Amino acid sequence: MIVNFTPGPSQLYFTVEDHLRQAIRENIGSLSHRSKQFEVISKETTEGLKQLLSIPQDFHIFFTSSATEIWERSIQNLVEDKSVHFVNGAFSKRYFEIVGLLGKHPTKVEAPLGQGFDADLIRTFDTELIAITHNETSTGVSMPLEFISRLREKNKEAVIIVDAVSSLPFPQFDYSKIDSVFFSVQKGFGLPAGLGVWIVNDRCIAKAESLVSKNISIGSYHSLPSLLSNARKHQTPETPNVLAIYLLNQVVKNFLARGIQAIRSETEYKAAILYNCLENNSMLKSFVVDKAWQSKTVIVADTGIKTESIIQSLNPKGFYPGEGYGELKKTQLRFANFPTHSKEQFESLVDHLNQIH
Amino acid sequence: MIVNFTPGPSQLYFTVEDHLRQAIRENIGSLSHRSKQFEVISKETTEGLKQLLSIPQDFHIFFTSSATEIWERSIQNLVEDKSVHFVNGAFSKRYFEIVGLLGKHPTKVEAPLGQGFDADLIRTFDTELIAITHNETSTGVSMPLEFISRLREKNKEAVIIVDAVSSLPFPQFDYSKIDSVFFSVQKGFGLPAGLGVWIVNDRCIAKAESLVSKNISIGSYHSLPSLLSNARKHQTPETPNVLAIYLLNQVVKNFLARGIQAIRSETEYKAAILYNCLENNSMLKSFVVDKAWQSKTVIVADTGIKTESIIQSLNPKGFYPGEGYGELKKTQLRFANFPTHSKEQFESLVDHLNQIH
Repeated sequence: MIVNFTPGPSQLYFTVEDHLRQAIRENIGSLSHRSKQFEVISKETTEGLKQLLSIPQDFHIFFTSSATEIWERSIQNLVEDKSVHFVNGAFSKRYFEIVGLLGKHPTKVEAPLGQGFDADLIRTFDTELIAITHNETSTGVSMPLEFISRLREKNKEAVIIVDAVSSLPFPQFDYSKIDSVFFSVQKGFGLPAGLGVWIVNDRCIAKAESLVSKNISIGSYHSLPSLLSNARKHQTPETPNVLAIYLLNQVVKNFLARGIQAIRSETEYKAAILYNCLENNSMLKSFVVDKAWQSKTVIVADTGIKTESIIQSLNPKGFYPGEGYGELKKTQLRFANFPTHSKEQFESLVDHLNQIH
Repeated sequence: MIVNFTPGPSQLYFTVEDHLRQAIRENIGSLSHRSKQFEVISKETTEGLKQLLSIPQDFHIFFTSSATEIWERSIQNLVEDKSVHFVNGAFSKRYFEIVGLLGKHPTKVEAPLGQGFDADLIRTFDTELIAITHNETSTGVSMPLEFISRLREKNKEAVIIVDAVSSLPFPQFDYSKIDSVFFSVQKGFGLPAGLGVWIVNDRCIAKAESLVSKNISIGSYHSLPSLLSNARKHQTPETPNVLAIYLLNQVVKNFLARGIQAIRSETEYKAAILYNCLENNSMLKSFVVDKAWQSKTVIVADTGIKTESIIQSLNPKGFYPGEGYGELKKTQLRFANFPTHSKEQFESLVDHLNQIH
C-alpha cells in the first residue's frame, strides 16, 4: 500500500474512490447545475461545512474553481487601494503579488522562511484588508490563532481574511475575529483538485457593494454580490464543477460522522509523534524550530544532503514524502498530516524514520 | 435506457464512465499538477485538440474553469475600452453584459430571438474586439462560417473571438479568419462540467501585452501571459481540475479514433432527420425558420401548449428533451445533437415524434 504524504494535491480521503463510483451510478457527471438535485447537494454541502467547522449561520459559503482564484477575487471585491499581507513563504508572497497585478497597493510584513511573526508586529494598520496565511504550505509554519485575535483587537475596521488552504478542517477559528476564510479541497479534505471554498461574512458583502457604488469594478460572475444572489438559491453564477461539490458533500458527511474532535485530536497526536521523532533523530530536524509556529498539518523536515537517501529508504515501505518547496526542493521533505492519514500510518512512518541513521 | 437531450450539461460521452473508472485506478484524483505525468497529459490534450479541430500549430490552448470565466478573461486581456457583440440570445447577451461590469464599453448588434444576422450588418467596426456566439444555446441559432469570414475581411485590425461552447467539435473553423475560440467540456465533448478551453493566436498575446505596457490590469494568474508561460511547460498557473483535463484527453483520443469527418457527417445526418421531422409535424415546428441559421448541434422546437404532453410521451421511451430557455421554458423543447447521441437514438426519437399528433 502506498501512502502519499505530499501536502497537495494530497492522497485522496479514503472514502473518495467509493464516492466517485457512486457518482458514476447516480449520473452526477451530467447533472444540470440548474436542477433541484444540484440545489439539494449545494445546500447540504454548505450546511455540512457550517456544522463541521462551527461557522456562524450568518456567514456565506461560495464555490470557486481554486484558492488561487479566491486570492484574486478577494482583492477585487474587498480592496479599493490598500492591503497588508503577512508574508513568510511562497504562497503568502504570491497572494501579496496578486494585489499589484490588479493595480492596487499592497504592503507586506515579512518573516524569514521557517519562522512566524513576533507579537510586536501586531499593530494598527492603515489598510482596508489584512491577509493572513494560516498555514504556509511551503515551509510548515502555522500562525497561532491567538495572533489573529490580537490583530483583530488592533484592527477593528480592516477586513481580516485567512488563507487556510492547507490547514482546514483542523483549526477551530474564532469567526468573531475574522471576516473571511478560504481553502481548496485537494489538501485537508482529500479530494481531487478543482474547487475552492470561500467563506465570508456580511462585512465582506458590504465592502464589495461599497466598491460598486464608487464605480470600481469587482469583476463579473464571481463578484461577491453575484455569488451571494446565486447562493441564496443554492446556485452558482456559472456552470460549476458539480462533481467536486458532490464529492465535497460526501466527505463532509464522512467527517461529521467521524467527529471533528476525533479528527483534531488525531491530527495533534500524529503531529506530536512526528515532531518528537524529528527532535530525536540526527538525520532529520524540524525546519520550524519554535514550537508555537510548528504546523500540525504540514510538517517540514530539514534533511540536507541525506534527502535522496531518506526518500529511497521510505519509498520501498510505501511512504512517499513531499519534496521541499522551491529552492529547498533537494534539502527538505514535507509530510502532510491530513484526515486521510491514519494514526497507524504515522506510527509506521515514525518507526521507519527512527531506523534511519 | 435513458437518452438525455438537454443541451448542457449534456449526457456524458459514452466512454466517460470507463475513463472515470480508469482514472480511479490510476490515482488521477491525487495526481500533482506539477508532476511529469500531468505535463504528459496536458501536452497530449492540447496536441490532440489541435489535430482533432485542425487548429494551426501557432495557436495556443489554455485551460480555465469554465467558458463563463473565458468571457471575463477575454475582455480583461483583449479590450482596453471598446468591444462589439453580436447578440441574439441569452448567452451572447451575458457576454456583452460582462464588458460593462469590467468597466469597459461594449456595443451590441442585435437580432431577434430565433434569428441570425443579415449580411448587411457586416461592416467595419471602430472596436478592439468583435465577439461572436457561433451557436446560441438558448435559441438554436447558428452563425454561418461565411458570415465570420466576411466580418474578418471588413475588420482586419479587431480581434475576432468566437464562443463555440455548444457547437464544437462540429464546426471546422477557418482559423485564418479568427483570433480566438473557446468552449466548455460539458456540451459537445460530453464531459462532467468544470473545465473551459481557450484557444488564442499570437495577436491575442500581443494585445494583452500591449495593455500591460499601458499599465492596464489584465488580471493575475489567468492573464494570457501567465497562461502562456505556464502552457509552454505544459503547466497551468494554478492547481487546475486535473481530473477533467485527464478525461478530456481520453475523449479527444476517442474522437480522433472515430474520426472527425464521421462525427461531422453523423451530426449533419441527425440534424437533417430531426429538422425534417419538425417540418412535417403539426405539433412541433422548428423555432429557427431560416435554414441558413438552423443550428446543427442544438435544435429548438416550438411546442406551445403541447410542451408538457410531448415531454410526457417521450419520457417513457427514455427520451429526455431539454426545456426551452428562460421565458420559453414552457413553450419550447431543445434537442442537443452532440457526438454522444447516436444515429439510432435520433432515428428512434424521430419515430416517436412522428407518432405525436
